[in-house]
Amino acid sequence: MPQQHAKNAFYAQSGGVTAVINASAAGIIETARKYRNKIAKVYAGRDGIIGALTEDLIDTSKESAAAIKALRHTPSGAFGSCRYKLKSLEQNRREYERLIEVFQAHDIGFFFYNGGGDSADTCLKISQLSDTMGYPIQAIHVPKTVDNDLPVTDNCPGFGSVAKYIAVSTREASFDVASMSKTSTKVFILEVMGRHAGWIAAAGGIASSKDTEIPIVILFPEVAFDKSRFLAKVDEMAGRYGYCSVVVSEGVKGADGKFLSDQGLRDAFGHAQLGGVAPVVAGIVKEGLGLKYHWAVADYLQRSARHIASKTDVQQAYAMGKAAVELAVKGCNSVMPTIVRLADKPYKWKIGSVPLDQVANVEKMMPKDFISDDGFGITAKCRAYLEPLIQGEDYPPYKNGMPQYVRLKNVPVKRKLSVEFKI
Amino acid sequence: MPQQHAKNAFYAQSGGVTAVINASAAGIIETARKYRNKIAKVYAGRDGIIGALTEDLIDTSKESAAAIKALRHTPSGAFGSCRYKLKSLEQNRREYERLIEVFQAHDIGFFFYNGGGDSADTCLKISQLSDTMGYPIQAIHVPKTVDNDLPVTDNCPGFGSVAKYIAVSTREASFDVASMSKTSTKVFILEVMGRHAGWIAAAGGIASSKDTEIPIVILFPEVAFDKSRFLAKVDEMAGRYGYCSVVVSEGVKGADGKFLSDQGLRDAFGHAQLGGVAPVVAGIVKEGLGLKYHWAVADYLQRSARHIASKTDVQQAYAMGKAAVELAVKGCNSVMPTIVRLADKPYKWKIGSVPLDQVANVEKMMPKDFISDDGFGITAKCRAYLEPLIQGEDYPPYKNGMPQYVRLKNVPVKRKLSVEFKI
Repeated sequence: MPQQHAKNAFYAQSGGVTAVINASAAGIIETARKYRNKIAKVYAGRDGIIGALTEDLIDTSKESAAAIKALRHTPSGAFGSCRYKLKSLEQNRREYERLIEVFQAHDIGFFFYNGGGDSADTCLKISQLSDTMGYPIQAIHVPKTVDNDLPVTDNCPGFGSVAKYIAVSTREASFDVASMSKTSTKVFILEVMGRHAGWIAAAGGIASSKDTEIPIVILFPEVAFDKSRFLAKVDEMAGRYGYCSVVVSEGVKGADGKFLSDQGLRDAFGHAQLGGVAPVVAGIVKEGLGLKYHWAVADYLQRSARHIASKTDVQQAYAMGKAAVELAVKGCNSVMPTIVRLADKPYKWKIGSVPLDQVANVEKMMPKDFISDDGFGITAKCRAYLEPLIQGEDYPPYKNGMPQYVRLKNVPVKRKLSVEFKI
Repeated sequence: MPQQHAKNAFYAQSGGVTAVINASAAGIIETARKYRNKIAKVYAGRDGIIGALTEDLIDTSKESAAAIKALRHTPSGAFGSCRYKLKSLEQNRREYERLIEVFQAHDIGFFFYNGGGDSADTCLKISQLSDTMGYPIQAIHVPKTVDNDLPVTDNCPGFGSVAKYIAVSTREASFDVASMSKTSTKVFILEVMGRHAGWIAAAGGIASSKDTEIPIVILFPEVAFDKSRFLAKVDEMAGRYGYCSVVVSEGVKGADGKFLSDQGLRDAFGHAQLGGVAPVVAGIVKEGLGLKYHWAVADYLQRSARHIASKTDVQQAYAMGKAAVELAVKGCNSVMPTIVRLADKPYKWKIGSVPLDQVANVEKMMPKDFISDDGFGITAKCRAYLEPLIQGEDYPPYKNGMPQYVRLKNVPVKRKLSVEFKI
């Protein structure tokens, strides 16, 4: 049997970027460079899957080994990302067909898609369609999401670093508040990401540990906000410790199912203001308890904070990229590499894989027994799950006091198709 | 002449705490321990000067050498701080007299006050009053303020670390926004501290450098906010780069002299909401340009972020504490050690000192030629001033992925006075 010629690979970053998604890109590109007999070049989509649809491909072979290595310590999406969600095959078959056309024109035989639940679904569909269209593509999904909501895998690259940022920041701000609480701020409120699940808010809980106890009240999206119970809890904590930190998920809802952040804030002219939930909670504390407060909204800082990334997370993000290529060269299709936990303490994990039809459209919520009975804290089980994910520091290199993040050349691949595609 | 017996020292932390104020405390305590023939014990005020007024002193000699050493890497105020401002001698002479009584009762001959402009003034008054009351106290002010507004000293310990945090965070969030700007957020707004001066906002400007250019618009409290000019600037930047980051000082005012944050935000019931300025700026961007935005409020995270402290700042904070004790044992009174800049590049500095009457009630504003002509950026001169202050990293030790910050025993000194003092 003649040896098959080496095909090119396509790689795209999808959805919200993270502090470590580029580490997965480095894992893919560096590993692919070791299998040149199977994978010729890695092309990246400029701005994610949009780059494939518009035939705007980036030739990663033009990047030096040093630049690709530096991706490991660079946050954000080095090739650009997007939130463009492909519709169902029935609704917009043309999009999928276009992808196959572009892949065919550029001799692409491997599709690596680095994202969350939606991109796992896209990945699965492309694999199915390439079959029916008679142009074979091996589609491998590379897990990434700060929301930590992909099924099967023990955790998702990107989450561990956000968790570490939130845990460290909550500890630091709590030390600050504690030291001035006698005459100043008594309640500090930190708003964190997580519209559907409380994974990130839960990380605020590990700011407090046996050797460094801190009064922390967590508001999870999983627990309907109950004003009087919340105020009683804060009052009790502030009474006992002199201060209290509140970590509130942006996705917290009231008993009416409405987001607490949608409180209809208006400016002096009556215009609606899109506010965060932290000032709303601050207002509730002020009105209900009359305690002095401060609030912070971490927003993008939390998911881009490569300077305090979790070493475990960086390693796993890289390992997922590497494993994706290894699965591809072994001939696998329609799969996702996973992180399999072997032990909590000391933490041990290995790489597994799962067929994509078990991943697409399945959201992993936080287990009920991860939230304490009163709904305001994390359980020992949750702590045992979270703590390994923030282990280790992996500092980027600094020059003149600033982290040195790489910017790639992102050289375009010459277009081959005559037809433009409008997004 | 007989050798004078060693007197005790009093140390207090004043005003808003920082990531490195405890490094000054370590400098004082460790250095004082080397001069036991001159300084017997260092007593700290619990919750700052309030501890002196209420005779609530902490005996730092009960802390191990390891615990005091760990102060160097611990943010916040280890003995507690307060914003209690002593009134003028005429208005409340009783407070000053009480301080002298407490100092006399505990054989205190040295007063180290670690704070900003107000505490320099208090320090000066205590020195003057101790003279007139015939109980000699050597009062030394130890500079500390994230606001960087003390005169004479080149910069203030605490500022460099906030500057580093803001520069790093702005760079990281800008990378995040850049990578998704094609289909998502185009304007990112970060609110930073600085009610009177734009020093901290200026630090956002060094997120952008020659090798890593980033479009950043800074809103300084020194420049009256002009909505149409601001919108034109953001529009131009977003047009040219595809995205834009805005660093806004909490102290920005409109042409009417009112804080931009005081826009009279109200909830659905008409209650006034104390909001930050970031959501106000976001609303202006949305209404004026229709661009997708995100906003963050760093609040206490910026001044407690010991995990990304500037090594230069830590060294200077420690050096100021050490110098204060050395000035004291030399017999100096009513002075403040200062940082004297010798060269920008490579950065060189030495320790100086200044009489307190040249410090008290003088605020150092940002020079006009530090702000670019259009009012939205920093000049080369400002960059040359700022960059040395964020040089170097000084990471705290970690255990299980979390920074190990020390908590002292804070053992009280037995009270000697029979009269209580009400604050």
